[in-house]
Amino acid sequence: MSLSQALSDCAIKIDKIMETLLPKPEGIEAPLAEAMRYSSLGVGKKIRPFMVIQSSNMFGVEEKAAFRVAAAVEFLHSYSLIHDDLPAMDNSDFRRGKESCHKKFNEETAILAGDALLTTAFEILSDPETIDDSSVRCKLVNALAKSAGHHGMVAGQMIDLLGEGKHLSLDEIIRMQKLKTGEIFAFCMFAGGVLGGASNLHLNALKKYAYGFGIAFQIVDDLLDLEGTVDTMGKPGGLDAEAGKATLVAKLGVEEARHKAVLLINESVDALKFWGEEADYLRALAQFVLERQR
Amino acid sequence: MSLSQALSDCAIKIDKIMETLLPKPEGIEAPLAEAMRYSSLGVGKKIRPFMVIQSSNMFGVEEKAAFRVAAAVEFLHSYSLIHDDLPAMDNSDFRRGKESCHKKFNEETAILAGDALLTTAFEILSDPETIDDSSVRCKLVNALAKSAGHHGMVAGQMIDLLGEGKHLSLDEIIRMQKLKTGEIFAFCMFAGGVLGGASNLHLNALKKYAYGFGIAFQIVDDLLDLEGTVDTMGKPGGLDAEAGKATLVAKLGVEEARHKAVLLINESVDALKFWGEEADYLRALAQFVLERQR
Repeated sequence: MSLSQALSDCAIKIDKIMETLLPKPEGIEAPLAEAMRYSSLGVGKKIRPFMVIQSSNMFGVEEKAAFRVAAAVEFLHSYSLIHDDLPAMDNSDFRRGKESCHKKFNEETAILAGDALLTTAFEILSDPETIDDSSVRCKLVNALAKSAGHHGMVAGQMIDLLGEGKHLSLDEIIRMQKLKTGEIFAFCMFAGGVLGGASNLHLNALKKYAYGFGIAFQIVDDLLDLEGTVDTMGKPGGLDAEAGKATLVAKLGVEEARHKAVLLINESVDALKFWGEEADYLRALAQFVLERQR
Repeated sequence: MSLSQALSDCAIKIDKIMETLLPKPEGIEAPLAEAMRYSSLGVGKKIRPFMVIQSSNMFGVEEKAAFRVAAAVEFLHSYSLIHDDLPAMDNSDFRRGKESCHKKFNEETAILAGDALLTTAFEILSDPETIDDSSVRCKLVNALAKSAGHHGMVAGQMIDLLGEGKHLSLDEIIRMQKLKTGEIFAFCMFAGGVLGGASNLHLNALKKYAYGFGIAFQIVDDLLDLEGTVDTMGKPGGLDAEAGKATLVAKLGVEEARHKAVLLINESVDALKFWGEEADYLRALAQFVLERQR
C-alpha cells in the first residue's frame, strides 16, 4: 500500500475512534462538544496519530491501545491549534481549510474547547480501557505532559510569540522549533515504544527520528507559508512572515533552509537503522515531508 | 489549633511545595514561568489543597504524596482562574487581590500560563515521586481529568457563559454549580481516599461532603459578590450580577439562598458521620464557608 493510501486509511480509522471518545452535543453545554468535534474530526492529515500507529506496529502493540493513544495525541494537537489561532495569539481566521474555532463559534467557546481537548487527552491515556498496565499508562501521561507543557510545546509557543520581530539566533530558533513541534512528534514515536516495552536504546532512536522530522516538518511548513494560499494551505499564506516570526527560512534563506531540511530527514531515516521493512512507512513519511505541497 | 491557623499553616507549606514544582523563569520563555508563578504562589486561601490534606490525613496517607497531589489541584485551580478572567470570558482585571494574569502580563501569556498549569497538574499526578503505586496515580489522573474537563468544570464554565441573561431553571443552576465548582472539590476529597485505599462507601461519603460544600461555597461567593468590593473580595463586586449571571442568589433571593447554603452545609457535615475527630477540620471548614467574609 502506498504511503498516501496508508495515511488516508489511518485518518479515516482514527476519526472513527476519536468520534467515540468525544462528548455528544447534549444539554445546555452542547456548543462545547460541538466545538471540540468541529476542530478535531474530519480535518488534518493525522500525521501524529499515524506516527503512533507506526511506532506501535514496530513493537507488536495491540491495535486498540495504539489507536486510543493516537486519538489522545490528536486531541492534544487540536487543542494547540485552537489556542494558537486565538486573536491574542496568531489571530488566524482559517485552519485546516475552514474557519478557525473562534471564528466558527466564539472566543470563549474556543478557549474552553481547547482546555477540554487537552484534558481529554489525559483522560484517555489514564483510562484502563487503553492498556491494562497502569505503569505504562502513567509513563504515557507523564511523557505527554512533559512534551506538551512548560518543558515542551507551550514553552515553544511562548518563544515563538516573544520572538516576533526579534533576532533569535540559529540555535534559539532550532530550540524553539524542537519545543514547539518536535516534542509532540517525539512523544508519538515514544508512545509506540512504551506501549510495546521497547528498550531505552530503541526509545532514544525513535525520539531521534522524531526530532529531525519535526524541525524538517517546520521548515517545509514555513516554506509553504511563504508561498501559500488558503487554497493550498488551508490557512492564509504569508501570515507568519508578515508577523515577523522567527523561522529557519527567514534566518537561513530559502535554499539553505531547504538543504537543512534534507539533512535532517536523512538523519531521521538513519535513526531507524535498527528496523527493517516494519519501519518503511516511517521512512516514506520522512521523505514525504520534503515533498509535501500543503 | 484553630481552623484559621491550620488553613494558614497549610497555605504556607503548600506554597513551598508548589514553588519547587514550578519552572524557574529562565531562557527566552521566562515570562511563561513568571506568569505561572504570579498566578499560583502566595495567593488564595488554598482551600482545595487543605481539603486534599485533610482527607489524606483521615486515611494515614504519607505527607509527601498528599502535598504533591494538593499542589497539583491548586495548579489546576489557578489555571481555571486565569482562563476565567480572560477578556473573552469574565473579563476581570483583578483576582486574588491583585491584577489578573492577562492584565499583569498580556493575554497570550495568560492563555499559555493557564495551559501550562493545567498540564503540570497531570505531570505531577503521574510522576512516581508522588506515590509509588501506578494504579493509584492513574486513578488520580483519570478522576481529575473527568472533574476538570468536558464532564466537569469546563462544562460548568460553558453553561455559566451561555446562561448569562437567560433564565436557567433551579435544577440547571444547581447542575452548573456542581460542575463548575463541586467536581473539583469532590476530586480533592476523593484524592485523599484513593491515596489511602478507602472503600467505595467511604469514597462516596467524601464526595457527598464535597458536593454540598461546593454549592454552598458558590452561594456564599455570589452573596459576597453582590455586596463586595475589591477590598474585601480581591476582585470588583457586583460583576457577576452585572453580567446577568445565573446564580442561586438571583434565582432564590438572598434569604432563601442563604437558607439553602445552611441546609447544604448540614448535609455535608452529615456525610462525615463515618469519622470521628480526624474529620473535625473538615466540619469546621464547612461551617467556615457560611461565615466567610471574602
